[in-house]
Amino acid sequence: MQYPAPISKLIDGFMKLPGIGPKTASRLAFYILNMKEDDVLDFAKALVNAKRDLTHCSTCFYITDRDPCIICDDSHRDRSVICVVEDSKDVMAMEKMQEYQGLYHVLHGAISPMDGVGPEDIRIPELIKRLQDDTVQEVIIASNPSIEGEATAMYLSRMIKPTGIRVTRLAHGLPVGGDLEYADEVTLSRAVEGRREL
Amino acid sequence: MQYPAPISKLIDGFMKLPGIGPKTASRLAFYILNMKEDDVLDFAKALVNAKRDLTHCSTCFYITDRDPCIICDDSHRDRSVICVVEDSKDVMAMEKMQEYQGLYHVLHGAISPMDGVGPEDIRIPELIKRLQDDTVQEVIIASNPSIEGEATAMYLSRMIKPTGIRVTRLAHGLPVGGDLEYADEVTLSRAVEGRREL
Repeated sequence: MQYPAPISKLIDGFMKLPGIGPKTASRLAFYILNMKEDDVLDFAKALVNAKRDLTHCSTCFYITDRDPCIICDDSHRDRSVICVVEDSKDVMAMEKMQEYQGLYHVLHGAISPMDGVGPEDIRIPELIKRLQDDTVQEVIIASNPSIEGEATAMYLSRMIKPTGIRVTRLAHGLPVGGDLEYADEVTLSRAVEGRREL
Repeated sequence: MQYPAPISKLIDGFMKLPGIGPKTASRLAFYILNMKEDDVLDFAKALVNAKRDLTHCSTCFYITDRDPCIICDDSHRDRSVICVVEDSKDVMAMEKMQEYQGLYHVLHGAISPMDGVGPEDIRIPELIKRLQDDTVQEVIIASNPSIEGEATAMYLSRMIKPTGIRVTRLAHGLPVGGDLEYADEVTLSRAVEGRREL
């Protein structure tokens, strides 16, 4: 026996989302049934609107509902610095810091030969193009501290350095509030490597 | 800074669901953006339809898109047995077994004085009413093996026994495939209590 069609379809819908298996999907679906109808309608509208109204900024490829995006359009921003990140969510992480005043460039991925992702498959050509006018003086590479992120950083640094633009990478080291005892060897070795005078 | 409104709204929508915090909500929302538009539309429709088209069967209170539900309406079912469960999902668990041929009654909760849930707050009066015609000969109480489930079972058994209808409770004991070593004391004590001749 199966659940009635409307709930089966909803369970199937939830199961398409990442990290949601059959048990969670059915729990969520039954929760929806007990929600207020207005809330469910709002949620359904939010789904459709997010998909329909959002696009990527044609300059920095950050997710946006208008083009250029709110960051590229902000005249108070320092146009001489571009921070390169893998994902729109990383922009939000940087913005939460409330210290960075430059622009961004979202690659939407990282170079990964194992997965067949090369420099042309992510927004690297568009970044190189952005660097061709003379306003940009520094590119901060904030790709993830993973194998793919490092490969992307290496590639970008080799591409950009010859043009004379300064290329920097976020520091690796111990996370603040972390414990030396629990740090992995690679992180610790990077922390030693990057030690600074006090 | 905040995400553009359409994605913020979607993240808020996901955060209203149980067990989904801000990080998971934003992961799911970004996943939606990368889905095909048709799939997103289908999912949104499934949400609205599930909420709009589903109701509870007026006899057994199982979730259904027609009344009486597919189980109450099935003439091959044994109308002399009613299995009482807490939740529509429990009906599905029983049906998966493919052995039970009787009807159901979904209480939509369990008696819990701590949470202010009394017998009148769940579908107990409707169950008692169903037992008034003479077709029902056995009530199987399949409420959860929790404090609330046991309280509900005790209450029902006291209510129904005087009418002469047989009242049974699902057996407690070791789960099949489990390990005696890891069984808790209460389960083990129930397993000994319910031991059977071989």
